[in-house]
Amino acid sequence: MNLPDLETPALVLDEARMTRNIDRMRSHLDELGVSFRPHVKTCKSIDVARRMMATPSGPVTVSTLKEAEYFLANGVSDILYAVGIAPNKLGHVLALGAKGAKIKVILDNVEAARVVVAASRDATAPLEALIEIDSDGHRSGVQPGDPLLLEIAGALESGGARLAGVMTHAGSSYNCTTVDAIRAMAEQESDAAVSCARRLRDAGYPSPTVSVGSTPTATFARDLTGVTEVRTGVFVFFDLFMAGLGVCRTSDIALSVLTSVIGHQRDKGWAIVDAGWMAMSRDRGTAKQVVDQGYGLVCDVNGKPMGDILMIDANQEHGIIAHRSGDPARLPDLPVGTLLRVLPNHACATGAQHDRYHVVQEDQRVAAVWPRFSGW
Amino acid sequence: MNLPDLETPALVLDEARMTRNIDRMRSHLDELGVSFRPHVKTCKSIDVARRMMATPSGPVTVSTLKEAEYFLANGVSDILYAVGIAPNKLGHVLALGAKGAKIKVILDNVEAARVVVAASRDATAPLEALIEIDSDGHRSGVQPGDPLLLEIAGALESGGARLAGVMTHAGSSYNCTTVDAIRAMAEQESDAAVSCARRLRDAGYPSPTVSVGSTPTATFARDLTGVTEVRTGVFVFFDLFMAGLGVCRTSDIALSVLTSVIGHQRDKGWAIVDAGWMAMSRDRGTAKQVVDQGYGLVCDVNGKPMGDILMIDANQEHGIIAHRSGDPARLPDLPVGTLLRVLPNHACATGAQHDRYHVVQEDQRVAAVWPRFSGW
Repeated sequence: MNLPDLETPALVLDEARMTRNIDRMRSHLDELGVSFRPHVKTCKSIDVARRMMATPSGPVTVSTLKEAEYFLANGVSDILYAVGIAPNKLGHVLALGAKGAKIKVILDNVEAARVVVAASRDATAPLEALIEIDSDGHRSGVQPGDPLLLEIAGALESGGARLAGVMTHAGSSYNCTTVDAIRAMAEQESDAAVSCARRLRDAGYPSPTVSVGSTPTATFARDLTGVTEVRTGVFVFFDLFMAGLGVCRTSDIALSVLTSVIGHQRDKGWAIVDAGWMAMSRDRGTAKQVVDQGYGLVCDVNGKPMGDILMIDANQEHGIIAHRSGDPARLPDLPVGTLLRVLPNHACATGAQHDRYHVVQEDQRVAAVWPRFSGW
Repeated sequence: MNLPDLETPALVLDEARMTRNIDRMRSHLDELGVSFRPHVKTCKSIDVARRMMATPSGPVTVSTLKEAEYFLANGVSDILYAVGIAPNKLGHVLALGAKGAKIKVILDNVEAARVVVAASRDATAPLEALIEIDSDGHRSGVQPGDPLLLEIAGALESGGARLAGVMTHAGSSYNCTTVDAIRAMAEQESDAAVSCARRLRDAGYPSPTVSVGSTPTATFARDLTGVTEVRTGVFVFFDLFMAGLGVCRTSDIALSVLTSVIGHQRDKGWAIVDAGWMAMSRDRGTAKQVVDQGYGLVCDVNGKPMGDILMIDANQEHGIIAHRSGDPARLPDLPVGTLLRVLPNHACATGAQHDRYHVVQEDQRVAAVWPRFSGW
């Protein structure tokens, strides 16, 4: 099977590019002497995860318990569920544990610690939790200097749950505009986690795990002394947002959406294609960057960018393709039926719109079809 | 089962509101004397479609051939596939026809007409196509005055395919700012379709079908003389975008995402919940309207809006809830574990992120779970 045999739209994964992305991240983390807990929320695929994990049983990071279920069913037992635990999920976490998952949860408040403690009483082994640290003011987490850290540790440990350490995610690295700023953010991220682990240990609590990560900070970190593991997800495919941030090159982007030209509005310089926001996602992350890539950068069927040809707008199942300048004369001839591949703003969001990867090796032959999933 | 028994995030459908939305649209179209071909791209659910369709076999409008497959398997045979046909989909269209679908395709150019003609030679019956008309400069379609209309008609009819008529979609109605402007757009939409049908008939071509539709224009149309059918999709659930447009009230919105509070950043006036853009979609349609509703308007577990409480930002599986003003004092007390329901910007986009509806009747009891699907 070759790309021209597929019905469009279809998700295409360039395995050669993906392999280079994985090798690069792995050797970088090896050099820094930290272990790697890939975030599988980007791929949601055991075929991709197997190429990232250190062993067939993990470790991995997940963003939903559906991911935990799926990866456990595929032999992956060492799982960090990296979204603050909600009370209505504890029963599910216990059930995963009973099925053999070595699953850790995270939390940043005493109420959640008490819920975890209560659930631990129903479990065969105490539940393990990491305390989330807010290293950058971005989202969740305990502020590094806040006495709350020790209160949560106390609530967990005295109640019979197990404190497994600390974790943080410097999501603000996505807003950096220079590599130096990302490097500084990487230091801030690891400093926050390491200092909180030290505070816990100084107070007599354990902190075996010190977990950090985001694709930008992991890529540019130079010293992770005190950190035990790094989590990153989007690096495996990369996307236009990461390219705009300077974290990868456009030629590293492994994910694209195959689409067909279905018509034109020639006076406007538009070609209309059968991939809209449903296939690309509504993610317009590059809109806030220096170079706005619309709904995606257009490549030919071989994955080669066609210059400044973008998906400038999208409806549910329609995309509008035009030259960045809007000049009709600069849109190449794209007869009805022409196949294009569109690089996405955000690999996590675009991947989630599809139920399989059509795997190619920098050519048009579909070497494999790998299933993926979405939802909860 | 009640809403508090669910794991969050979860998609909630208020059936009582949905039924009122369907009844209102149906009686409006009955009064106008046109038949109704609901667009099932919004619901992607036979349970919802059965409540909208005139008969168990349709008619319906679909946006993907996966929808066509699914609805045909559920007894719906009268199908309009309302995205310009791509050459790589003709084999699939023929296979649907062989399985009993009475499926029509659409196109707006001679190249596509020739592909449909070629496919008709392989079919047991000629393929039926509608010519798409561009009534508003929004996307695809032949301009109403363009001689291309008759060229396409000639290519279809002389080649052995069947010209079934014309269709148009006034997507620009989404950009109207007053009800009067939507009414004018509704007239423009039906005028374009009716005049093109007349041109075809004057030239000796058939045009049994004259199909128009968008939720805003269908809602406010006052005269559809010459139109044979109306297509609308989002009306069934409505959303914040439609409310911002004045097409519905907030209390008509039947779709919401159930989510749990998992933490706080109290100094910032934030509650963090376990529904992010993956559960809400990345759709930020209201950002361009007078009232920007962020990633969604927050209601209590019973679906009652809590004033100006919004999801002001979202990550993949995290949402940030705050008062519109940003004032921490104006965020109500929302302990960890509190259930909230978030009304979406765009029902089509939010629905697509989920694989089932949890159906309630203006209360917390889950009366049914209806499956839905996504993808291609």
